[in-house]
Amino acid sequence: MDDSWPTSPAAAAEEHRETGVDLHLDLPPGTSHGRRAALERALRDAVRRGRLAPGSRLPSSRRLAAETGLSRGTVKAAYDQLTAEGYLTARQGSGTVVADRPQGASPPAPGRSAAARPPRHDLRPGSPDVTFFPASGWLRAARRALAAVPSAAFDYGDPRGTLQLRTALAEYLGRTRGVVAEPDRIVVVSGYVQGLALLTRVLGEARGSGPVVGMEDPGLPFHREVVRRAGGTVVPVPVDERGAGADLPELDAVVLTPAHQYPTGVPLHPARRHALTAWARASGGILVEDDYDGEFRYDRQPVGALQGTAPDQVVYLGTASKTLGPALRLGWMVLPPRLVRPVAEAKLYSDYHTGAVGQLTLAELIAEHGYDRHVRAARLRYRRRRDLLVERLAGPAGRPGVEVRGIAAGLQALVSLPAEGPDEAAALRLAAAEGLAVGALGGHWHTPDGAAGRPQGLIVGYATPGEGGYPAALAALTRVLRA
Amino acid sequence: MDDSWPTSPAAAAEEHRETGVDLHLDLPPGTSHGRRAALERALRDAVRRGRLAPGSRLPSSRRLAAETGLSRGTVKAAYDQLTAEGYLTARQGSGTVVADRPQGASPPAPGRSAAARPPRHDLRPGSPDVTFFPASGWLRAARRALAAVPSAAFDYGDPRGTLQLRTALAEYLGRTRGVVAEPDRIVVVSGYVQGLALLTRVLGEARGSGPVVGMEDPGLPFHREVVRRAGGTVVPVPVDERGAGADLPELDAVVLTPAHQYPTGVPLHPARRHALTAWARASGGILVEDDYDGEFRYDRQPVGALQGTAPDQVVYLGTASKTLGPALRLGWMVLPPRLVRPVAEAKLYSDYHTGAVGQLTLAELIAEHGYDRHVRAARLRYRRRRDLLVERLAGPAGRPGVEVRGIAAGLQALVSLPAEGPDEAAALRLAAAEGLAVGALGGHWHTPDGAAGRPQGLIVGYATPGEGGYPAALAALTRVLRA
Repeated sequence: MDDSWPTSPAAAAEEHRETGVDLHLDLPPGTSHGRRAALERALRDAVRRGRLAPGSRLPSSRRLAAETGLSRGTVKAAYDQLTAEGYLTARQGSGTVVADRPQGASPPAPGRSAAARPPRHDLRPGSPDVTFFPASGWLRAARRALAAVPSAAFDYGDPRGTLQLRTALAEYLGRTRGVVAEPDRIVVVSGYVQGLALLTRVLGEARGSGPVVGMEDPGLPFHREVVRRAGGTVVPVPVDERGAGADLPELDAVVLTPAHQYPTGVPLHPARRHALTAWARASGGILVEDDYDGEFRYDRQPVGALQGTAPDQVVYLGTASKTLGPALRLGWMVLPPRLVRPVAEAKLYSDYHTGAVGQLTLAELIAEHGYDRHVRAARLRYRRRRDLLVERLAGPAGRPGVEVRGIAAGLQALVSLPAEGPDEAAALRLAAAEGLAVGALGGHWHTPDGAAGRPQGLIVGYATPGEGGYPAALAALTRVLRA
Repeated sequence: MDDSWPTSPAAAAEEHRETGVDLHLDLPPGTSHGRRAALERALRDAVRRGRLAPGSRLPSSRRLAAETGLSRGTVKAAYDQLTAEGYLTARQGSGTVVADRPQGASPPAPGRSAAARPPRHDLRPGSPDVTFFPASGWLRAARRALAAVPSAAFDYGDPRGTLQLRTALAEYLGRTRGVVAEPDRIVVVSGYVQGLALLTRVLGEARGSGPVVGMEDPGLPFHREVVRRAGGTVVPVPVDERGAGADLPELDAVVLTPAHQYPTGVPLHPARRHALTAWARASGGILVEDDYDGEFRYDRQPVGALQGTAPDQVVYLGTASKTLGPALRLGWMVLPPRLVRPVAEAKLYSDYHTGAVGQLTLAELIAEHGYDRHVRAARLRYRRRRDLLVERLAGPAGRPGVEVRGIAAGLQALVSLPAEGPDEAAALRLAAAEGLAVGALGGHWHTPDGAAGRPQGLIVGYATPGEGGYPAALAALTRVLRA
């Protein structure tokens, strides 16, 4: 920083010596006696209503006197009075603090109660093993990234995201997923949900009313609700052993999970890829590619991104949620050029842009290949877990009729239940008795109480537990399936 | 991390020894000769289309062979061929990389061109001095925060934000701004724009159509557009020397800047505060308090948050944009209890929640009072700049007719122009000739080409430049006003 601007060292020193905290008090103007009473009332009220929390340190009497225009003696007298009343405590060496249990504090908390107790064994799909989050690597990358940027990086930025991250993603997505991804067709978003919501709104603006969006059946109900909340109408697109069907009604867009259909795990068949891109070219419809676990492929023949074959028809959506952790809320859209400006504008008026510190950190992590190394190590870890899952459930010791599907990639498998039972409801009851939380196919259908005779299956998120908890969770699942 | 889960040290070592990067290639199955040609085509195509950027390092031939099922000799032959063709380069010690200027690469970049050159002197309002961003303190707080949390903090979290930040904000906002802010009435958002957009949508859902929202006139045009994009209808609320008027038509909400009206700088008069809260109680309408610079008050009598006097009628919105930096995209809403659940749901379906690392870092910074110290130091800095602004423009050496208003607080002042000129348009032309960017009142009216005889003024963001650049920017402004 340039310091040619004249500063007063004495003033700066005084500013820093004071260790108390900022305090807002509403004091009416008036005589000193009236103002002392007002100060006492204001402090008492602040403690009672919980505005001043137990343990909060008050400003020194000297500073509060200077700030309020009262004499220091008046402030001291007010502090003494409230200490006598039990609202405040004088602590040796740390001044005056709010007492631990002031009368009448702790108003009842409105809103949601605390989260439910976590299950003993957690094989629910949707999350990676968060014990594997590379906190130290993330912090080191953040330090390097912040050291390298000009201070303008801390101001408002480009709604499309930082150039650093868009450049790093362009290289990474081209290299690893076959995505045609120049930095100028990328918009950084705060996760998949935001990307889907923004796109739905943009398609609605282009149409003048809510867009009609095809979504895989079965598929994730949460994402259907995201589309509906953004004004879209959801139409089911049936999934079979080749993935999503290509015999489509009139639609503005279709949302697909081509690499590893969620939740069945089948990859989109090449004939379907061809038919769907042909539909998009002919109709002008958009294919939305949810590449939620594309980094985790365990076979030699990888499934490249659909976007690489039809970059002007496909909106590609990826995130750091499965590779690093969902809490980062970092995702990216790779867009046909005509959609970049409308999506960036929708982003601008939604939240301006995604936080820059996370973006710059991820860019650094990708550029120095720490991201590649982490993904590769995670892939190895999850592949071992998948192998163990298959061995335990479908190996020689497994129960006939139980099949483990969708295992070529991803972080979850579909475990089909034998025709003679247990069915999903029974399996979930048995799991609950084991303290095991696991997904089931049932809730993923667009019409959950639809046709009888639908396949019955559990969705097993084998990445969810920590390394230490996985064998026990798997043992619990095995007991459920043998019952 | 628990490591009772069996791992193979040999496999892990192999996984880490390999330094190349991940690479996706679409290779059809077939004979080895056909597949070598396919590999060459795939690599050539990836470089030509820019999917593999110049300088990208390719996997070793050993690893690519293992991944593709080709022999190592076949992969080597393909690399040699492409090196001969100029697409790849063999670099001593770092393997095979993509050549610097492959033929036909660098497709034209669609979308927006690069940002315009920054002005020589920047006194535009809206940003703090970002050279003052406490990068080291932020990183230290991040390290402490991440060391303290369980790994579940890296998974999906509460849409309202982390409990750590909501608890820290409750204490801070009560103490410094007089806000009634239990953690359960707080929803953490990604900045002010998101808070305003979410609230507009929620009010629209309650109403079954777009809400009617009163907004100050003059006020920030960008925020009016945020409300419109979220489905709201904007109605002007005239501002006079007492702040926003209280003679309101039928409205669902009024957006106010009570501490320091933007852009005129007047605080909302106590009589108006009373009238507006009375209106809200009688009509059920919502008062939205945009406390965009409430931390920066320079006078002894602070202006407390409106929310403190009517917590069930006011939605309080604050951010870290002016105290730390806009790039963080961190803000908070303090809500009447009845609005917490609908706003949290709107947040969930918009982007799930705000990134947790930033939230945890800010919570740590507030809890250990580094945030207070930074705000206090920034306040001292900006107060000196304000004093210099007033001295130069309105002191004995200043030009008669020029007044500096709205200076009790905040990061910007309204500099009214003398009746005999220059008017705003002329002043902006003179400023441009000086290389000075500065705001003007004109664009802030709801109907910019409305009544003649409106006051003419410049909006001076005296916090925007770095310390080193401020005196020169101020000198340029002085020349403009003396012209």
